[in-house]
Amino acid sequence: QINGDRLWASLMELARIGATEKGGVKRLALTDLDKQGRDLVVGWGKEAGMSITIDQIGNVFMRRDGTNNALPPVMTGSHIDTQPTGGKFDGNYGVLAGLEVVRTLNDLKIKTEAPIEVAFWTNEEGSRFVPVMMGSGVFCGAFSLETAYAAKDVDGKTVGEELERIGYKGPQVPGDHPIGAYFETHIEQGPVLEDADKVIGVVPAVMGLSWYDCVVTGMEAHAGPTPMGLRKDALQVSTRIMQEVVAIANRYPPYGRGTVGMVQVFPNSRNVIPGEVKFSIDLRNVNDELLNTMHEEMLAFIDKTRSESGLKISIERVSYYPPCPFHPECVDAVRSATAKLGYSTMDVVSGAGHDAIYAARLAPAGMIFVPCKDGISHNEIEDAKAEHLEAGCNVLLHAMLERARL
Amino acid sequence: QINGDRLWASLMELARIGATEKGGVKRLALTDLDKQGRDLVVGWGKEAGMSITIDQIGNVFMRRDGTNNALPPVMTGSHIDTQPTGGKFDGNYGVLAGLEVVRTLNDLKIKTEAPIEVAFWTNEEGSRFVPVMMGSGVFCGAFSLETAYAAKDVDGKTVGEELERIGYKGPQVPGDHPIGAYFETHIEQGPVLEDADKVIGVVPAVMGLSWYDCVVTGMEAHAGPTPMGLRKDALQVSTRIMQEVVAIANRYPPYGRGTVGMVQVFPNSRNVIPGEVKFSIDLRNVNDELLNTMHEEMLAFIDKTRSESGLKISIERVSYYPPCPFHPECVDAVRSATAKLGYSTMDVVSGAGHDAIYAARLAPAGMIFVPCKDGISHNEIEDAKAEHLEAGCNVLLHAMLERARL
Ligand SMILES: NC(=O)NCCC(=O)O
Ligand SMILES: NC(=O)NCCC(=O)O
Repeated sequence: QINGDRLWASLMELARIGATEKGGVKRLALTDLDKQGRDLVVGWGKEAGMSITIDQIGNVFMRRDGTNNALPPVMTGSHIDTQPTGGKFDGNYGVLAGLEVVRTLNDLKIKTEAPIEVAFWTNEEGSRFVPVMMGSGVFCGAFSLETAYAAKDVDGKTVGEELERIGYKGPQVPGDHPIGAYFETHIEQGPVLEDADKVIGVVPAVMGLSWYDCVVTGMEAHAGPTPMGLRKDALQVSTRIMQEVVAIANRYPPYGRGTVGMVQVFPNSRNVIPGEVKFSIDLRNVNDELLNTMHEEMLAFIDKTRSESGLKISIERVSYYPPCPFHPECVDAVRSATAKLGYSTMDVVSGAGHDAIYAARLAPAGMIFVPCKDGISHNEIEDAKAEHLEAGCNVLLHAMLERARL
Repeated sequence: QINGDRLWASLMELARIGATEKGGVKRLALTDLDKQGRDLVVGWGKEAGMSITIDQIGNVFMRRDGTNNALPPVMTGSHIDTQPTGGKFDGNYGVLAGLEVVRTLNDLKIKTEAPIEVAFWTNEEGSRFVPVMMGSGVFCGAFSLETAYAAKDVDGKTVGEELERIGYKGPQVPGDHPIGAYFETHIEQGPVLEDADKVIGVVPAVMGLSWYDCVVTGMEAHAGPTPMGLRKDALQVSTRIMQEVVAIANRYPPYGRGTVGMVQVFPNSRNVIPGEVKFSIDLRNVNDELLNTMHEEMLAFIDKTRSESGLKISIERVSYYPPCPFHPECVDAVRSATAKLGYSTMDVVSGAGHDAIYAARLAPAGMIFVPCKDGISHNEIEDAKAEHLEAGCNVLLHAMLERARL
């Protein structure tokens, strides 16, 4: 059994770095605050007797030796960067739960056969730099180190420069690092566990995701003198597409998701008919065929809307990863650890992307979810119960021990 | 007949003050550039032998004496402030057409019985300071001088301070100034004249206007893990209202207008379900009863949407003026001047608000429209033909002469 109070205390201490007035955390990737957070966690890792390796994209691996160091490590991890309006738990919990597992093994003087590693991956959130899940993505070869280095924030600063500046551009080649198995604990970031009053979510898979930028171009004109029939109102045409995004998701329950989260209207003046509207589309499903059907239906609807309205509509896919089923052995390890510990449980498909989906391309992987208050995440009011975080960490301990062997 | 080349040259010279790269003008009310524009026009007025009066809200009246100065002046005017992405003609044309009328009378040594005045009104556009049509509104008592003085721009600067700073807070009490009749020439700011291939629009009335701020409050949550059925998506609910705004306008042709021009989505992040959407609604009609019906239908739809969606929806009316029919004598003066000069013509209801609607509360008033390219205004590409501007100015000359008597 891990020490829940110690886990909670570490979470609260890390959350002080970048703490916001509303009780959240703003610690964007590769900022000075991120460096402070990294230094704190690395310090804790060293205190726990772990050796530290840093790779060229700034991923940090903290290693506790096993009795047979020729075996690939059983790894756990997540990220410590946050959203601009982030919470205390997203990512941070997965890293500190890993640290707590090691601290517990130290307390109990338990030796594992395989080494144990706790990783934190660079820029999971993708808020400051795109693509999201950058560190794990480079690690598994989903995109190149050069692509990642060249990514710019709004001020034009690059990942390469900023990594160097904060002293976290390490020597190790990303991916040049074996993994025996990978586990990640995370708050659910959705309401399913809380609604069902369960403590542990066993994660069979992560949904695939398709992101688009859509631009509708009409003609800006004065809202008063322009007759209704002569308008090219980019917003009105956009609202039809926005409604269809949700309608498409509703046609593919229970795992279809459709969201328009970002909208920009030009010139955005009260008495000017919008001449251009840009908006994002986020489609997800756990079944790649259905995700593709949703994609096709959306493109068909846009074609239809284009010819009906006569307006210019462009659509570009800006991100995609397929659904990621986790490895049956890792899913079973989580399930049996949960059963052994007697926690209430259910399967929860992850709607959010996680570093685990990239780790899963290199090794058997699995995830453990715990509830978060009202299912809210990416929000300063994100909250979770200490007893649930403790439970998730206990499941992590036992699942890792099963794979690392005593 | 006025001098079209001289009118054009003055328009182009004034347009240099605040000229933008795209060929437009950015000369916001009460800025240094507005002062430069005002100084230029006042200088031209003095050169044309006119006396200058400035009132406490910065309205400027340039007066050419008549043979009987006990008669109230026949006034024309408009504004010289512009939108941030404004054009060369909106407002400026009305002021410089008035100046051209006086220059022509001087050239021809014509004396009128009643004095002639050319006014430019402060802050018609309402871009920097709300309310719109501020100078003429204070002048006619639609709202108080104190309200206007207290209006703040985004930097917190007030109208009172800024008027003082640029030296245009005059001594005259607004409205303490008789008007015999008021005419205003303006580009149409809509496509009706161009579509019908007519040169002069006789303006029987200006539509009434109702402006609203609507706020839909849902709950922001992660776009991936949150099932469709558990969402409180503020944008999806907003799109229904946005579509209804247009549907309502379409139910009351030909003068119903409905526009959503301004939208703000919070937190406006690609993978976050919008938790709050604020947007503007602009409803217009030339018939006040129908405008009121449109208002009632919108409120009823919002009530229905509130109870169907369960989301919080607030709606606030932020501006209203009723339709303004112009005085039959002034409308006829415009119509007969147009006939006399032989220009092609049609009646065009004004969809845009103008200083003339406030002047019309104090004296018989009328307006003259000329076409603008593609009906585009409030846009740097706003354009108009020299021959149309000349024609409108000729109509103004003859309509004013009819009222001022030779
Ligand atoms: N966990 C998380 O929020 N990842 C970002 C990518 C996504 O939107 O799912
Ligand atoms: N002429 C003009 O654009 N006035 C501003 C008020 C309106 O939107 O009609």
